[in-house]
Amino acid sequence: MSAVKFEITARDGNARAGLLHTPHGIVHTPVFMPVGTQASVKALTPQQLDESGATIILGNSYHLHLRPGDEKIANLGGLHEFMAWNGPILTDSGGFQVFSLAKCRQVDLDGVTFQSHLDGSKRRFTPEKVIEIQENLGADIIMTFDECPEPYDHAYNQEALQRTHVWAERCLAAKSRSDQALFGIVQGGVFPDLREQSAEFIASLGFPGNAIGGLSVGETKAEMHEMIEVVNNILPEDKPRYLMGVGAPDDLVECVLRGIDMFDCVLPTRMARNHTALTRLGRLNLRNSPFSDDQRPIDETCTCYTCRTFSRAYIRHLCVAKEILAATLVSIHNIHTLTTLAGDMRQAISNARLEDFRHDFLSNYRKHRSPET
Amino acid sequence: MSAVKFEITARDGNARAGLLHTPHGIVHTPVFMPVGTQASVKALTPQQLDESGATIILGNSYHLHLRPGDEKIANLGGLHEFMAWNGPILTDSGGFQVFSLAKCRQVDLDGVTFQSHLDGSKRRFTPEKVIEIQENLGADIIMTFDECPEPYDHAYNQEALQRTHVWAERCLAAKSRSDQALFGIVQGGVFPDLREQSAEFIASLGFPGNAIGGLSVGETKAEMHEMIEVVNNILPEDKPRYLMGVGAPDDLVECVLRGIDMFDCVLPTRMARNHTALTRLGRLNLRNSPFSDDQRPIDETCTCYTCRTFSRAYIRHLCVAKEILAATLVSIHNIHTLTTLAGDMRQAISNARLEDFRHDFLSNYRKHRSPET
Repeated sequence: MSAVKFEITARDGNARAGLLHTPHGIVHTPVFMPVGTQASVKALTPQQLDESGATIILGNSYHLHLRPGDEKIANLGGLHEFMAWNGPILTDSGGFQVFSLAKCRQVDLDGVTFQSHLDGSKRRFTPEKVIEIQENLGADIIMTFDECPEPYDHAYNQEALQRTHVWAERCLAAKSRSDQALFGIVQGGVFPDLREQSAEFIASLGFPGNAIGGLSVGETKAEMHEMIEVVNNILPEDKPRYLMGVGAPDDLVECVLRGIDMFDCVLPTRMARNHTALTRLGRLNLRNSPFSDDQRPIDETCTCYTCRTFSRAYIRHLCVAKEILAATLVSIHNIHTLTTLAGDMRQAISNARLEDFRHDFLSNYRKHRSPET
Repeated sequence: MSAVKFEITARDGNARAGLLHTPHGIVHTPVFMPVGTQASVKALTPQQLDESGATIILGNSYHLHLRPGDEKIANLGGLHEFMAWNGPILTDSGGFQVFSLAKCRQVDLDGVTFQSHLDGSKRRFTPEKVIEIQENLGADIIMTFDECPEPYDHAYNQEALQRTHVWAERCLAAKSRSDQALFGIVQGGVFPDLREQSAEFIASLGFPGNAIGGLSVGETKAEMHEMIEVVNNILPEDKPRYLMGVGAPDDLVECVLRGIDMFDCVLPTRMARNHTALTRLGRLNLRNSPFSDDQRPIDETCTCYTCRTFSRAYIRHLCVAKEILAATLVSIHNIHTLTTLAGDMRQAISNARLEDFRHDFLSNYRKHRSPET
């Protein structure tokens, strides 16, 4: 009996709308999950996050292990209580960060030794350690430890995949909390043979949900779409499928169409801090000078707090004046853009017209992409 | 007929509780006014500001004139609409900033020529220009142009006072909007003779409210209290008295007791960005390591969103991890501390027990001031 249960409520081609039942509430899928790397979705209170339409958020095991420490968070009642987010949480395993942020990595079949990017202290992650960290954090959904290599080296990806698969089995064996669901992760770079092999192995372990890792890391859109198609042909159809690290509006549409249910990305909040708004028509660089007289909201079709309340002129002023509030207001908008996009796709799937939705969305999105005033 | 009307509802010694009727609503006094220097009370949305108990906020003419420009704000509907704050606003005249921030100042009896601290551009403020800027911004309460000199040089303060008085008269003559009230400013450094002379002159001009400037700039507490007593003996008793730039909790108590009705200060928001919480017991440096395990809120007696929702442990983590949310959460708390302190003093004045309130407050405040865990 898994801690999460996935219920498909509608299908449209390969796309699905569903309900993910978790210990902290129900998540409607397809869903975009904002990232709270260090136990904070940057610049937002839990209240603002909720108002932006977020229903499930991410925490990051690597970061929280280093600071403030997963044991400390366990002693303080777990991650939900620590950050005052009462909805569902997913923690990643730290694999991606160990292979992108940490210094002086040494990888072996048993795990990875590395230095903290914060203070250089020596650390070791093994599958068991990563499960221990995630059990201390107490998220509803936890992830297997995986290696996320550079996507174009077949030989290295093949070798790394063996570790990822051994680690997946060991994570499954190490997991002890019944109120958490462990999802497996498929790797394999841009290579259909490796992706196939990985999807088959991960599917065979019977996880209550499966993720696709190692995409959106430099490969082409065509390669990303092909890998998703290869993998989703194999992953069990009745389990949620989570595409890790993807969050651009057009990617959400293309990947939902290919059977993805869950997404996470730092894109909406990172772009907000760089003064870029995501809209259904494309991206807006809010520092552009024509906005200084523009009384319209960021997006006239958007119903978020930011668009209901503030003009582009005001937000541009906040950006230029380096006011903290700019990051908050644009983050609210960007997250709202992705959560409502996911919601509209749920509706389109229920109405069996996702292909039309995609057509309309992408023609508008591309037409206005850049530059935008 | 002034745009604002002051109604005293209770008295206790020299202290008063009252209602300040403005075009954008009623302000209960004594009141603490958070500062939105660049059309943003830093790190807070108008919604959060409202929930923190703020009823009237400040804007800064010097900053808004330079960026985005007061004419631009006028074209966008005025400062209330620009920053989406529908409550009362007070703008200062820019005098303080010209004399503290701007470069290459040249002061004459007609005004001040200076260079923008942003781009070095040459600017000139005269009383008429400062009224024009404030009329473009459209605040409910606007201030006369004044010179705020170093407080210990009698000869210079005497000379500056002549300018401040001439400028006050010229501001009064230049003012044209009937929906704004112009307040005068008393200067005079730490010198009772100059303060007396200034209070008499400013009082003679019949402003609907009067401010005391040039305090909390390096003088002792005893000097500050003496100056307030000298001035408040002369300023009309039926008009609001505004002590500029003061915001420490103990100063609020001491100065309300001496007949002050209005305060503003960047202290609560600046301290928040430096990870210091204001409480009724003293200040907390939230980066202190004992807080890392502390499940209590910042202040167990506080009812703000931050204290209702988050532990010291979490907020310390946000501070150490340099998360933007730290500034937001501590700003909410610090402003709430000052607005509720003002509210409790209103109540104490209505009950004719402000002296007892002061005694209790100051004994607690001093006892625990520092260090605090």
